[in-house]
Amino acid sequence: MVKVGIVGGTGYTGVELLRLLAQHPDVELVAITSRKEAGMAVSDMFPNLRGRVGLKFVDPVDAPLKSCDVVFFATPNGIAMQQTRELLDAGVRVIDLAADFRIKDVALWEKWYGMPHACPDLIAEAVYGLPELNREHIRKARLIANPGCYPTAAQLGFLPLIEAGVADLGHLVADCKSGVSGAGRKAEVGALFSEAADNFKAYAVAGHRHLPEISQGLTLVAGKPVQLTFVPHLTPLIRGIHATLYVRLTAEVDLQALYEKRYANEYFVDVLPAGAHPETRSVRGGNFCRIAVHRPQGGDVAVVLSVIDNLTKGAAGQAVQNMNLLFDLPENKGLEQIPLLP
Amino acid sequence: MVKVGIVGGTGYTGVELLRLLAQHPDVELVAITSRKEAGMAVSDMFPNLRGRVGLKFVDPVDAPLKSCDVVFFATPNGIAMQQTRELLDAGVRVIDLAADFRIKDVALWEKWYGMPHACPDLIAEAVYGLPELNREHIRKARLIANPGCYPTAAQLGFLPLIEAGVADLGHLVADCKSGVSGAGRKAEVGALFSEAADNFKAYAVAGHRHLPEISQGLTLVAGKPVQLTFVPHLTPLIRGIHATLYVRLTAEVDLQALYEKRYANEYFVDVLPAGAHPETRSVRGGNFCRIAVHRPQGGDVAVVLSVIDNLTKGAAGQAVQNMNLLFDLPENKGLEQIPLLP
Amino acid sequence: MVKVGIVGGTGYTGVELLRLLAQHPDVELVAITSRKEAGMAVSDMFPNLRGRVGLKFVDPVDAPLKSCDVVFFATPNGIAMQQTRELLDAGVRVIDLAADFRIKDVALWEKWYGMPHACPDLIAEAVYGLPELNREHIRKARLIANPGCYPTAAQLGFLPLIEAGVADLGHLVADCKSGVSGAGRKAEVGALFSEAADNFKAYAVAGHRHLPEISQGLTLVAGKPVQLTFVPHLTPLIRGIHATLYVRLTAEVDLQALYEKRYANEYFVDVLPAGAHPETRSVRGGNFCRIAVHRPQGGDVAVVLSVIDNLTKGAAGQAVQNMNLLFDLPENKGLEQIPLLP
Amino acid sequence: MVKVGIVGGTGYTGVELLRLLAQHPDVELVAITSRKEAGMAVSDMFPNLRGRVGLKFVDPVDAPLKSCDVVFFATPNGIAMQQTRELLDAGVRVIDLAADFRIKDVALWEKWYGMPHACPDLIAEAVYGLPELNREHIRKARLIANPGCYPTAAQLGFLPLIEAGVADLGHLVADCKSGVSGAGRKAEVGALFSEAADNFKAYAVAGHRHLPEISQGLTLVAGKPVQLTFVPHLTPLIRGIHATLYVRLTAEVDLQALYEKRYANEYFVDVLPAGAHPETRSVRGGNFCRIAVHRPQGGDVAVVLSVIDNLTKGAAGQAVQNMNLLFDLPENKGLEQIPLLP
Repeated sequence: MVKVGIVGGTGYTGVELLRLLAQHPDVELVAITSRKEAGMAVSDMFPNLRGRVGLKFVDPVDAPLKSCDVVFFATPNGIAMQQTRELLDAGVRVIDLAADFRIKDVALWEKWYGMPHACPDLIAEAVYGLPELNREHIRKARLIANPGCYPTAAQLGFLPLIEAGVADLGHLVADCKSGVSGAGRKAEVGALFSEAADNFKAYAVAGHRHLPEISQGLTLVAGKPVQLTFVPHLTPLIRGIHATLYVRLTAEVDLQALYEKRYANEYFVDVLPAGAHPETRSVRGGNFCRIAVHRPQGGDVAVVLSVIDNLTKGAAGQAVQNMNLLFDLPENKGLEQIPLLP
Repeated sequence: MVKVGIVGGTGYTGVELLRLLAQHPDVELVAITSRKEAGMAVSDMFPNLRGRVGLKFVDPVDAPLKSCDVVFFATPNGIAMQQTRELLDAGVRVIDLAADFRIKDVALWEKWYGMPHACPDLIAEAVYGLPELNREHIRKARLIANPGCYPTAAQLGFLPLIEAGVADLGHLVADCKSGVSGAGRKAEVGALFSEAADNFKAYAVAGHRHLPEISQGLTLVAGKPVQLTFVPHLTPLIRGIHATLYVRLTAEVDLQALYEKRYANEYFVDVLPAGAHPETRSVRGGNFCRIAVHRPQGGDVAVVLSVIDNLTKGAAGQAVQNMNLLFDLPENKGLEQIPLLP
Repeated sequence: MVKVGIVGGTGYTGVELLRLLAQHPDVELVAITSRKEAGMAVSDMFPNLRGRVGLKFVDPVDAPLKSCDVVFFATPNGIAMQQTRELLDAGVRVIDLAADFRIKDVALWEKWYGMPHACPDLIAEAVYGLPELNREHIRKARLIANPGCYPTAAQLGFLPLIEAGVADLGHLVADCKSGVSGAGRKAEVGALFSEAADNFKAYAVAGHRHLPEISQGLTLVAGKPVQLTFVPHLTPLIRGIHATLYVRLTAEVDLQALYEKRYANEYFVDVLPAGAHPETRSVRGGNFCRIAVHRPQGGDVAVVLSVIDNLTKGAAGQAVQNMNLLFDLPENKGLEQIPLLP
Repeated sequence: MVKVGIVGGTGYTGVELLRLLAQHPDVELVAITSRKEAGMAVSDMFPNLRGRVGLKFVDPVDAPLKSCDVVFFATPNGIAMQQTRELLDAGVRVIDLAADFRIKDVALWEKWYGMPHACPDLIAEAVYGLPELNREHIRKARLIANPGCYPTAAQLGFLPLIEAGVADLGHLVADCKSGVSGAGRKAEVGALFSEAADNFKAYAVAGHRHLPEISQGLTLVAGKPVQLTFVPHLTPLIRGIHATLYVRLTAEVDLQALYEKRYANEYFVDVLPAGAHPETRSVRGGNFCRIAVHRPQGGDVAVVLSVIDNLTKGAAGQAVQNMNLLFDLPENKGLEQIPLLP
């Protein structure tokens, strides 16, 4: 049994981790921390867990995290970097669901995240936890930087075209739409039901923190810089990201065959038949990315549609997938839930 | 392995059955029928099942239903009664998710459902499949009448008070609210997004088919007639029923203790702590009924709040629970999915 | 032109007042206050008002409220009572959309609202602003206590039966459902989209502040105490209240005729044809209350269905209706917007 | 008074026309037709109109359409072209809210709409009713082709850049998101609440009928062909379109100044301050288009955000705007409703 600790379990990635880990046959949940809610039963906050998670939130200072095999950080940005070294030194593996270790260029990270980094050397060591790109490095890692939600959907959509060298790297467009749970379980006016329901808007067009993360990933694969226009939008659903990607093709390519081949052995990436349109609900609560590729009017623009559940493949599910890799478990262990439709 | 057939798999109870059965370790899905969609891959209609359900819809006449151990009818009312006898004669057990066998009084059934009944003798044999009330009869049944969604939420909420003999049976009120999936996957204007979203209404106040079903159940338990006012409402959620029950108390009673004791050994019925308010999302996709009991201002009116997922405990999940009983499997086998929250 | 000031304009009742008053031909908007947002253009916060409301929020101490003809308080409970006397003394009429002057029994108010009242004598003077009940008193008032949202829907629904003396006053039930805007524009976790969407729950079953308000109103009409069980619920719509009222009849009565006659001359109360079910969307953005009456199975229980828009007839619209009465304007002036459907 | 007839009033553009026209001070509603619902009171179908629209649906053959000054067709594609000539010959002006007269190239129209055109000569005469582009022609027209919803949002967003000659016409992208009311009030499974709520998807990526309409409009302005990739998406709101437009700039330009100048005198087009993100709810029920322009990271891609209410500026409101032009009324007469927020 893998002994698991969770730091910061009161948000949506926290409860999603709990849902998945409580159903994982090889996991023992040891501790879940919350400074603010210490002493409260986890299932009092999240009644879907009644009868399944008996833990109470504990104060971080009291939590036996060093006796865990792995600790997940489901915390705001800037927390994991304070505590990771101590855990690693104690032999504990760390999976950070926040952004502390995602950007390799420290100065770039500090610019986008607005704070000095506490442990730049660990950035270098951290492995970016996108298994479909990085599986073998993940297996041997001590520290995983779990990808962001938009970056997961966008990179899985762009990768085959960029690996194949048929994309105009100077004009990539990622028009992405997210459900409101991506904003977290924080009390903010903009995420109120009466603000976000029956409403649609773009946000952060001038620059979103996931832009450098996606660009870094694509640049690494391309071997040269890419120019990406990334526009995130808020759409009135709870869970789900839909990335619509526009790529100018620089050479002839059989899009459908390219994508099917690239993901033929990926359990969690599902390439739909030609002509299909993936729906976010088809991955609701599941750790899947479903992708369809189009070439409207036979022109030179490829349109890639990529959907994930932002809390599952876009956060907690991918973190468990990474945990499975770290501990030599089947990659889909505990992650086979069929998405909930309708 | 229990060999399972499904008749009429293109509606919401059909896809919910498939979701649950495809994850059930002791089930082999043999056939799923649809006259209209014969030949279509099930996962083309329901992409959440891609990679998990390989079956195609088959025409009912071609389906090897008689070689199944059990057949679920997820059909409109009036279909199961045409086909049940032949299956029973072939040694197949039948679980009808529609209403054909729910009402013992044939004339009453014919009045509410507006058609003659095809096999009144089988009504007599059929066992009403509410395990928390009827478990031992279910184990030995050949034919199960799976309860309606409102009746499940309402009866589980009313039962302890009626069994304890402390309810004024002349003035029961069940104010019930259902998500739109209860209306099924039929193309009807009233169930369109643009009609049902951001809207709330009562319907069928003059009389809903679930009224005689609930009344029959309560009358049986009470041993005398009950007078129930039942008002169903449509609320803009996909899944979920919230029953708010008003009962005049005729004697002193410790409500909390009564409910906790009644359901102490019921895996799927969860009595919340005193003062709680169950949310429909706490059972979304799970086979649970969560109940809280109140006595506002210490008066003589008990208010019982009872929530279920109408497609799971209110339909397909309860049907699988009944199947487990029929085949001596643990009652919660394949039904342990943690509800999806948020 | 009626010169109007608004105290506390950053909430949902504030923006609804602005929407209505900006379109009112006899109104001059003089000032709108907000301590926190002083200096901000109102239309920067509420872009639906761009081009129509040119005001900026001003600090309350700077606002020329005493030169107004009427001041609306769209503030949290406990604010209006601090400032009303000074305004009344300056000859300004006051309409409080909060609860400060709704309950005549000071001790009862203080118990439910958890604070001492600042000016009990003004409670005595204040007129409860339900025009359909109290029109003539409103015309002559200096100070209007604008009713709560649930109390408006519930009282308009109960009134005809109680006035006619055919209701069992010992067992009234009001099962009410509200859209989330009723919770206001405050940053609270429970009102987040990801908490409230696709979810339904009761709340405050043990006691909601609108209970004594409704009871007071019904008691006054009945001339003797009533026993009311009031259960509010949160439903995933932005605007709308649906009250489902259950009344035991103590005498024979033609429900339809009773209601049609009672409201025959009320512009804002619409009695639907027999058998109808009012929808909340049929009053979305309009100052109407639509009511239907039923008597299921011809029994002794009347079921009254009453819908309003909680921000319009349940708050700002009714306040403008009261203003029209105060200034001898046609009661529906500026309030004739047709509800938005779909 | 302008005497108005409506052909086909049972859909969402029909009820929206009725809402606007019933509040228009210079309009007399003469007749509204529906073959299927002839004899039914309009307000029985659309209860928001109770007390405001007294008409009944009449069979088209009985409707006194020739005595109207103008007839609106709120019908499926292919109906208006059958009846327009007769009306024009009788001196009645016609505004078609469907697509029959939008595409000048008859063969192109027939290809996309899959039927022969009944009166190609009238296509030549028809004026495309986008007032911000075509105002003077509209004033003198007999026959108006009212623009589609996506084409309105997209063209108003693209126009300034194309008129200024600073757009790379070879690679325009329009990523558009529509509320579900755009699918109409037809009973279709895909538009059911349980299918469309809590879900997001693209559709018709291979080719949508609004593509040739947008391309035609942009080509006319540019004076040369444009290449447009247009991807429509379905988002779970009732009303609203959000167009996100991506344009490679071919020359330096002050985007904000360009847009502000272009629309300085347009009552219904609102250019937001630099850095803003328009929300669909800010135009809910209003005839406005709100636009914001961005240039992320100072690169060579302009991102234009354009929102409308698909039923108002995207259909019925724009039709009334065109009617106002036809009859020399102030362009915003009857169209000044403030959008409903929240």
